[in-house]
Amino acid sequence: MSTGHHIDAKLLGAKLMGVGVGPGDPELMTLKAMRALGEADVIAHFAKAGNASHSRAIIEQHLRPEVTELPLYYPVTTEQPSCSAGYRDAIKDFYDNSAAAIAAHLEAGRVVAVISEGDPMFYGSYMHLHTRLAPRFPTEIVAGVTGMSGCWSAAGMPIAQGDDVFTVLPATLSEDELVRRLADADAAVVMKVGRHLPKLRRALEKSGRLPRAVYVERGTTTAEKMIPLTAKLDDEAPYFAVVLVPGWEKRP
Amino acid sequence: MSTGHHIDAKLLGAKLMGVGVGPGDPELMTLKAMRALGEADVIAHFAKAGNASHSRAIIEQHLRPEVTELPLYYPVTTEQPSCSAGYRDAIKDFYDNSAAAIAAHLEAGRVVAVISEGDPMFYGSYMHLHTRLAPRFPTEIVAGVTGMSGCWSAAGMPIAQGDDVFTVLPATLSEDELVRRLADADAAVVMKVGRHLPKLRRALEKSGRLPRAVYVERGTTTAEKMIPLTAKLDDEAPYFAVVLVPGWEKRP
Repeated sequence: MSTGHHIDAKLLGAKLMGVGVGPGDPELMTLKAMRALGEADVIAHFAKAGNASHSRAIIEQHLRPEVTELPLYYPVTTEQPSCSAGYRDAIKDFYDNSAAAIAAHLEAGRVVAVISEGDPMFYGSYMHLHTRLAPRFPTEIVAGVTGMSGCWSAAGMPIAQGDDVFTVLPATLSEDELVRRLADADAAVVMKVGRHLPKLRRALEKSGRLPRAVYVERGTTTAEKMIPLTAKLDDEAPYFAVVLVPGWEKRP
Repeated sequence: MSTGHHIDAKLLGAKLMGVGVGPGDPELMTLKAMRALGEADVIAHFAKAGNASHSRAIIEQHLRPEVTELPLYYPVTTEQPSCSAGYRDAIKDFYDNSAAAIAAHLEAGRVVAVISEGDPMFYGSYMHLHTRLAPRFPTEIVAGVTGMSGCWSAAGMPIAQGDDVFTVLPATLSEDELVRRLADADAAVVMKVGRHLPKLRRALEKSGRLPRAVYVERGTTTAEKMIPLTAKLDDEAPYFAVVLVPGWEKRP
């Protein structure tokens, strides 16, 4: 469904696309994402300052030489707690400025594809641009394979079935909240593991879910690491690592 | 990651593939699913007896004439409650027999692709075949865009962001359980709506989530129906309809 209001003649041809490029394996891009990459005048991608964009790496082999790239670098905010007003202001300014840079291309009648790892509307940074720009410009969302689907597929792990309740939890929750929610769901994916791994281990132990938990880093990429959490001896984990807890315990 | 044990020479070339073909729009198939369709000697698909297979419709334009089709028809069980022993036995026999039919092809050294709407390991019937066959044959899972991703993308709806807790609930839960779980999550997708719609409406109302709820039928297909639930005046809903409740209420 395209949205768009107050569109004038100058904008003919302008379109904002939020394009999911999947979990990491370039083969897990959709045909529709491929079409979007072919159609785009401008390809925008998010990255940490000083780092290569993960989403750009996924599509790199399909980048046409004539396309304009628009890298969007998250502000360096590591010195500030993420709940601080300073952090929130920096992030808000970043999204405002990113949206303005994209709007300039749209106002010139261009097609701008913002590529997102996984699915753009599922915890994706694209959402911040969408809410700012969709009221003013035609938009199209290209759903993508989520990172978590990539992980459980790579693990050959049936995650949820039948009347299972499935939940996605950020590892940033308190230990008590993690225990309560892990015990209350049949299947779970815990995201943003990073430095929260020791707390998450305790919560999985207390909720009885530790024996089934699988730790995954960079699922579906060439750098994939996958191990039962009980077999992982250290507590080193990047921010983007996930832990999968499969449901479907009463298999017929 | 391929799994497979006790593989002998006869099985060289044999492979079971669980292939996600996405939510309905054929363009939302992945490049990897396309490769699997090209590689398969046999394409198996689930359908209700007397009905066309939804997954087959998605890939129909890519079916090669030389491929062997293996339709798997669910037993007619509408006269029996789904918790009854008779229902469970009929379903178990169905999956046992389906697995045996596929095993015969694998033992002849063929590549069998079982196509699944959405993602094969996320509430997919393929899982029942996988658990029966993966211990004996090499397998490969091709992750797919889930039905729910297709729905919220088609709706242009950011579903979850930041530290949101996201949950998937079957509408078969009791009204009290639905109320409790809807109130306890930031974002939710309710599946298997069907005849449970009146109960689900009450649960959404009691949990305060009704104003944000969107009803979707056959998202991303040409038969797509999408409407705010408060604007839907009847309680007619097919089994596969979903209700989306977006999170991200505190947007920066």
